Formats: sequence, C-alpha cells, structure tokens
Amino acid sequence: MHAETPTLTLKELAARLDRPFRGNPDLPLSGCATLSRAGPADLSFLANPRYRSDLEACQAGAVILREEDSEGYSRGAIISPDPYLDYARGAANFDPSGHFVPGVHQSAVVGENVTLGEGCWIGANSVLEPGVTIGRNVFIGAGCVVGPGCVVGDNSRLTAQVTLVGRVRLGKRVIIHPGAVLGADGFGLARDADGWVKVPQLGGVELGDDCEIGANTTIDCGALDNTTLENDVRLDNQIQVGHNVYIGAHTAIAGCVAIAGSARIGRNCMVAGGAGFAGHIKVADGVTVTAMTMVTHDIKEPGGTYSSGIPFQPASTWRRNVARLRNLDQLARRLLKLEKDSQ
Amino acid sequence: MHAETPTLTLKELAARLDRPFRGNPDLPLSGCATLSRAGPADLSFLANPRYRSDLEACQAGAVILREEDSEGYSRGAIISPDPYLDYARGAANFDPSGHFVPGVHQSAVVGENVTLGEGCWIGANSVLEPGVTIGRNVFIGAGCVVGPGCVVGDNSRLTAQVTLVGRVRLGKRVIIHPGAVLGADGFGLARDADGWVKVPQLGGVELGDDCEIGANTTIDCGALDNTTLENDVRLDNQIQVGHNVYIGAHTAIAGCVAIAGSARIGRNCMVAGGAGFAGHIKVADGVTVTAMTMVTHDIKEPGGTYSSGIPFQPASTWRRNVARLRNLDQLARRLLKLEKDSQ
Amino acid sequence: MHAETPTLTLKELAARLDRPFRGNPDLPLSGCATLSRAGPADLSFLANPRYRSDLEACQAGAVILREEDSEGYSRGAIISPDPYLDYARGAANFDPSGHFVPGVHQSAVVGENVTLGEGCWIGANSVLEPGVTIGRNVFIGAGCVVGPGCVVGDNSRLTAQVTLVGRVRLGKRVIIHPGAVLGADGFGLARDADGWVKVPQLGGVELGDDCEIGANTTIDCGALDNTTLENDVRLDNQIQVGHNVYIGAHTAIAGCVAIAGSARIGRNCMVAGGAGFAGHIKVADGVTVTAMTMVTHDIKEPGGTYSSGIPFQPASTWRRNVARLRNLDQLARRLLKLEKDSQ
Repeated sequence: MHAETPTLTLKELAARLDRPFRGNPDLPLSGCATLSRAGPADLSFLANPRYRSDLEACQAGAVILREEDSEGYSRGAIISPDPYLDYARGAANFDPSGHFVPGVHQSAVVGENVTLGEGCWIGANSVLEPGVTIGRNVFIGAGCVVGPGCVVGDNSRLTAQVTLVGRVRLGKRVIIHPGAVLGADGFGLARDADGWVKVPQLGGVELGDDCEIGANTTIDCGALDNTTLENDVRLDNQIQVGHNVYIGAHTAIAGCVAIAGSARIGRNCMVAGGAGFAGHIKVADGVTVTAMTMVTHDIKEPGGTYSSGIPFQPASTWRRNVARLRNLDQLARRLLKLEKDSQ
Repeated sequence: MHAETPTLTLKELAARLDRPFRGNPDLPLSGCATLSRAGPADLSFLANPRYRSDLEACQAGAVILREEDSEGYSRGAIISPDPYLDYARGAANFDPSGHFVPGVHQSAVVGENVTLGEGCWIGANSVLEPGVTIGRNVFIGAGCVVGPGCVVGDNSRLTAQVTLVGRVRLGKRVIIHPGAVLGADGFGLARDADGWVKVPQLGGVELGDDCEIGANTTIDCGALDNTTLENDVRLDNQIQVGHNVYIGAHTAIAGCVAIAGSARIGRNCMVAGGAGFAGHIKVADGVTVTAMTMVTHDIKEPGGTYSSGIPFQPASTWRRNVARLRNLDQLARRLLKLEKDSQ
Repeated sequence: MHAETPTLTLKELAARLDRPFRGNPDLPLSGCATLSRAGPADLSFLANPRYRSDLEACQAGAVILREEDSEGYSRGAIISPDPYLDYARGAANFDPSGHFVPGVHQSAVVGENVTLGEGCWIGANSVLEPGVTIGRNVFIGAGCVVGPGCVVGDNSRLTAQVTLVGRVRLGKRVIIHPGAVLGADGFGLARDADGWVKVPQLGGVELGDDCEIGANTTIDCGALDNTTLENDVRLDNQIQVGHNVYIGAHTAIAGCVAIAGSARIGRNCMVAGGAGFAGHIKVADGVTVTAMTMVTHDIKEPGGTYSSGIPFQPASTWRRNVARLRNLDQLARRLLKLEKDSQ
C-alpha cells in the first residue's frame, strides 16, 4: 500500500545531496514545485537561466541553484554545480511511488512456490504465477501479472497493470510502467503451402539493473536466446522491441520507436521519438538518432548523429515539392543531359 | 452490469432529435444498421449522396435523411438538415455501453475513503485505490485500476482495463477505452557520471469534460505541473502524450500520433494518424496536420494545413528517387553552376 | 494452469514431421536451442547456410537440416527440404504455452449464461462477462476481460491481460497476446456548433481461424458492420486497426503499422513495420509494403512492392538535402528554365 511521503529539513536534504545550503536548517520540506508555483514547504530548482527572473517572486522553501545564480537570493537555497541532477536526486525523497507499506493485498493471487523477498508490496488483483521469484522491497501495483519463470530483482517497481508473460528476468531497481508487456511472443512465421506456421518463441527477456520501461511499451521474448537490455537502459512509452534485440547500457529511447528483431543497439545511444530500426542491424555506441528516422542498415562509427525525418511545410508547398520528389530521378537525368550539352 | 438497450418509437426518437418525421409514429426502433442491412426495427441514415441508391431496397424502420433525399421514399423517415449528426445523437439511445445497472461487483476492490457517487457501476476485478473520488453515474468496467488521488467526473465511463495511475482528474462525460494509461511517469532523466538519474514525475493529468481517449493511448503525468486536455478533446488509439503537454478544446487527434513533452496544441485542431510533434513547440488554433507529418517547430498562424508525409510509389521507382534525394544538395549545386555558366 | 512440456524421442518427433531421421531413435528431446547453445536434449535446426560452421561443435540431440547440409554430420538429425518450417512444426511440441491443465481459477469471474467448452483454462482474475461463449480447449490467461457478446473459438489462446470489449468473434486456434484490445470503439465523430458528438460504434470484430494478434495491438469494432480479419492473418505488436477495416487471409503485418478506418487490404500481403494506410483505400492481393511507407490511395495491381520510407543519413548531410527538398519545386522550375534557355 502507498505510504505518506516524508518531511525532510533543509539541512537533512542538503546533507543527502552533499551540497552546501543557505537559510533555516530546520525548515521542513515535503514536496516539489516549479519556481513560480512553489510554496514554503516545497523544493524547487533553477537549471535553465531563462527562468532566473522567476526567482524574484519565488516562495519556495528551498531552491537548488548554481552559485552564480544565487547572488541576491535571500530565501532557502542549496548550491549545486548541476541543479537539475541534484533536483532529481532531491525530489526522489518526495516521490510517493517510492514509499509503501509492505504486504500482500488479500485479493492478490500468489501461486505455489512463489519466492517473495522481504519488504514487498503485492497489490490488489495482481497475479504471481507459480514459481515466480520476487526480490526484496519490490512494489507490484494493482492488476499486474507475473508469469511462469519470471524473476524480479530487489527494489524494483511494477507500477500497475504490468505484464511479464514468462521467462522475464529483471535486475535491481527496475521500474516498469502500466500496460508494458515483457516476454510476449516475437513475430516469427514460417510459410507452408497452406499459409503461415507459427515459429514457437521459446526465449526470454533479460533486463539489467536500473532499467525503466514506459507505459504500453512491448519487449518480446527471444525466439530461442533472450532479448536483452543491459543496465540503465531507459525506454519511454509505446516502444516496440522485437525478439532477440540487444540494447546496450545507458541507452535512452523516446516514445513510439520501433526496433525490429535481432537489431543490436550500442551503449549510450540516444534515440528520438518515432524512429524505426530494421531487423538484424547493428548500431555503434554513442549514436544519436533524430525523430522519425528510419535506420535501415548498420551504423559502424560510434558517436555520430543520423536523420531521415522531414520537417513539415504548408501543405500546398509540400504537395508541390513531393510531386517533384516523385520524379526526382528523371529531373536529375535532365540535369545531367544539360550538363553534357553545355560542355 | 450492462443493461438491455431500450426500444423507442419513431415518434419518441424524432422528438428527442427535435426533427419532423414521416411514417407510423408507433413504430418500435431498437437498433441501428446501414441502409443495406437495416431491418424493420433499425434506425439508419443517408448522409453521403453516394449511397442514395441504397434507399430503394432499404428495409429500415426509419432513415434519417435530408428533405431533398426523402422525395419518393415511402418508409419511415426523420428529416434532418444534418443526417450524420442527428444519426449520432439518435444512435446514442441504442448504444449498449450507455446503459447499465448500478452496483459494485463483489470481486471489485474498493479501498478506504473512496467516495462513490450515486448510480455507479464498478466492474469485476476493478480496483479503486484508497482516497479515490468517483462522481455520479460513472461506469467503471472490468479490470480497471484507479490510483491514489484520482477523481472521475459524473457520467464518465472507463470501458475496461483502464489505468489511471495517480493524480488524474477527469471532467464529466469522459470516455476512456481499454488499455489507456493516464498518469504514468513522464520520461525525465538527468545525467550523472555513472549514467541516468530519474527525475521524479510529480504532476498530474487533468482532462476537461467530454474528452474521449482511445484504446492503449498513454497520457503521462506532468513533471511538476499537470498534463492538460481542455474540454472535448478527442484522442484515437495508441497516441502518446508526453508530460506537461497541453491540448486545447475540441481538438481531435487520430491514431498513433506522438506528442513530445511540453508541446502545446491549440483548440479545434485536427491531426491525422502517425504525425509527430516535437517537445516544447506551440501550435496555433484550428491547425490541420496531415498523416505522418513531423511537426518540428511552432505553427503560429491559426488555421493552416501542414504536411511532410510522402505518398508511396512502386519500390523500384522510389528507390531511384531516394538515391537522388540523398544527393540533392549536390544536385542543386550542379544546377547553380549550370545557371552561372549559362549567364 | 500451465503444465509440463512433454519429452519426445527422436523417432516420435521425426514421425510427427513425417521426415527421415538419423541417429538413436530413442533419444529423448525436451526443448529447443540454437546450434551453438543446444544440449543433448535439445532440438535445433540449420536453415541459413551462414550458420553451417556451427554444426561442427554442435551438441544438439537432433538438428533439422537439409540433406546436403547433413553430409559428415554424425549426431542426431532430421532431414528436411525446409528445415525452418519443420523446426516450427517440431518446436511447437515443446512450447509451454501450448500445454495446460484445464480448470477455472478460483479468482476468475464467470458471469451468468457463460458457455464454457471442455478442456478450457480460465486464469486468475480473468473476467468472462455474462453471455460469453468459449469453445473447447481454450486457454484464457490471467487478467483477461471477455465482454458481452464475445465468442472464442476452439483451441484459441488469450495469453494474459487481453481485452475483448464486446461483440468480438474469434475463429479457431486464434492467439492473442497481452495488452491487445479488440472491439474498442472506432473513432467516429460528428460535428455540431458546440463541438464533437460521438457517433456510437455498434458493430463488432470478426477474426477467422488461425489469426495471431500481437501485444498491445488494437482492433476497433465496426461503426455498424464488423471489422474483419479473414483466416490466418498475422498481426505483430502495437498495430492499430481502425473500424470497418477488412484484411484478407494470410496477410502478415509487422509492428507499429496503422490502418485507418474502412481500409481494405488484400490476401497474402506483407506489410513492414511503421507503415500507414489511409482510410477507405483498397489494396490488392499479394502486395508488399516496405517499412514506414505511407499508403495514401488504392493499389489495384496485385503483387507489387511499394515504398516511401527514407533511409537515414548523417544528420549534417541530411539537413542540407532536406533544405533543398523544401525548395524542390522551385529547383525544378529553374531547371526547366535552363532547358528552355539552352534550346
């Protein structure tokens, strides 16, 4: 069950962040807000200089900000070289999803031979199928289904209505949001004379520590080996990850990206929304892919940025340009002819 | 629990629509069908003149149609200046999803301090977490989860398997379809030396009256302030709405659109399927965006139509054109050179 | 409840596939693995000659492979003209999802007048609404909701957390993966002076035999008539199928494709990931559509391949090319002028 979030004094919070502070050390902080909306019990932050003018009328109990932005600011402050990062760390104390009372809701269904670590919460109408292993301090919200052969690591959180179909192994501190489906069958078909024959999907899904999986994202099980995410992979909502995909550590992928089967994406990559990856391709470490780009073949060189998305135009202009695009090869040939003629 | 849909006489239905009718006033109507399939107890309509020939063999109890289309039609009819609109209003009487018997299914889990208005149905295996507020005549279908701090307005309907994660406020007459997830964490990350640090997502989601949210659509909670949909926003299936997005009243968005965080879309906009919106951009009122268009920056002028989607070609033709597109800048430079040379 | 998968001898398996075999006829096989990971109780296969070198160190109990690839291979083997197809058939014996003990979990909710065939499993916290009809040997996993008027054919499987909203008819041997929503309202709106009026969605969804529907895919009910998939239609994950769409037999569609309302797609089509289909269009039989292609109008000729997706480039190159694309009509006019001038 969810629990109350704690109150911290300014001094306690600054100590947790290991940063100097100014103002009343005993000031109680119990929540977070933007500079313009924060009240006396709220933590706020100033990371983008564009919002500096919001400091003037700011009522926050404490603001995390850079030394140079703090001049002349007389209310509570925590001085940080990276206010956004320290805000993220500080705000975690006030995130209600991180606080719960252990227990098993009476409506939850816990199958035989389930191993349940200490300090877990199993929410209303959730189902742990027989043989599942749940680590310590795991929060499983309402309406989740954890299928046969699944293992959930310590301090992980399945917010609500999450499905781990089967043979899914999660590392520690993994967060999975509602509607996400891990371990569903990959899309494998063989053809015979009469139509399609399903290729059984017998592999699993394996996530490292500190991964986060967005709402309604799907990660298929491998056909035989596993679909794998290394540590600290961050997936936004409605991403499709096909069977046997491999994603390297610290890669972050925005919403609505599709990754076809057996693609291999490197570490520390950044992928913007709506991009697509063809099957079986390899993408090097540190690559950035911009929005709605179609990645059709290997990217071997680490660290570049790649695109094929097209910014919009007024429809009438675009229609004329597209009409030309549909004849671009012919147009290029005409140019070549002119070049030859003019020689 | 679902209830039987009512039977209305032609006279009663015409009165509800406030339109004149022809034919037997006591004719009982209990359902709807297309002109070609309708039987004597069915309501049908003729909006598109293309289907006028279907009137000849039409067996419908009553057809909603324009005065000019009704000449020579001798069966039951309701005369309307806008048959499609009046059909929509009339058919609502026969929609089974609008009729239910109030109650709480014995398998539903209703937490402490839940406020439940009169006339509600709470379906099998649904979960209302502690402190939730549900208005009057609300239908919550099977398998829904309504999380902490959520408020559902009067006459709203959560069809089935809907998730309101937490801090979600719905106006009146809101309809949410299965698999939709409102209030999941937005995609907020800060970077430190070791990898990503989650930025807690502490805001909520707020929907005005008369909004409709399609199946498997996701609307993230705000990072600090709310993600907001004004009244009468209509979202189709599998749409992704990032944190702190704001969508103006009467805007309708088709399936598979992705809207990145903090984008602001105006009122009365129409967005076709598969379009994408970059984060933090602003789109004016009354704007139309065509299918698979990428909206990368602000659209300041109200009312225009914008595109960047590319209609298909035979693959062999397209391949040649794309090969030229990949060298288009070079091609343009060659053209410029020719122009200079020919001067 | 899931059951143990069986053990078959090499002789038994070869007999089921109706193929000759080599090696110990009594060798027990109980699972599947790739050539490089298989152990003595595993079935494996060699379809792609690229992996032929993996045979050397292969420890598999039996490998399905072509006659010509089997020369010199001394371990257990099943000889097949189509190893991938025969592997698919053979591996089905070891797929745990195909084996279960019939019964109704005590937490399942079975409404009044539900017809339940022999040999079914109804999983934990699943809900069968009143009047539902379930055939024989159907597996309904945990957390499913089967709504009013639904019919599930013999030997079908709803893996877990599947939603059949209402008026959904499934043929035999249909497989539906978690998070899929069939029968949600289509996106139908009429406009009046004050805003949108919902057009009630009163049709159903009908699937033929042997269809498979991926995780988080949505198939809307028809507005009045049904949305229809013929036999053996295979849909991957996160596909959106609008109201009144019709998809012909044996068509296979990869992830994240969007099909707008009333589109009609032929038989034996293949659609790659991320493609989009406009509403009301017709696509002939045997058509292939490549990834991220926008199908905007009818394709009348059977059997062709169509594209409009754009392969990526380095962002700096792409940016220059796109800048030219945005002025392509003007560029074409300049070329035309040059051509005229040079005559």
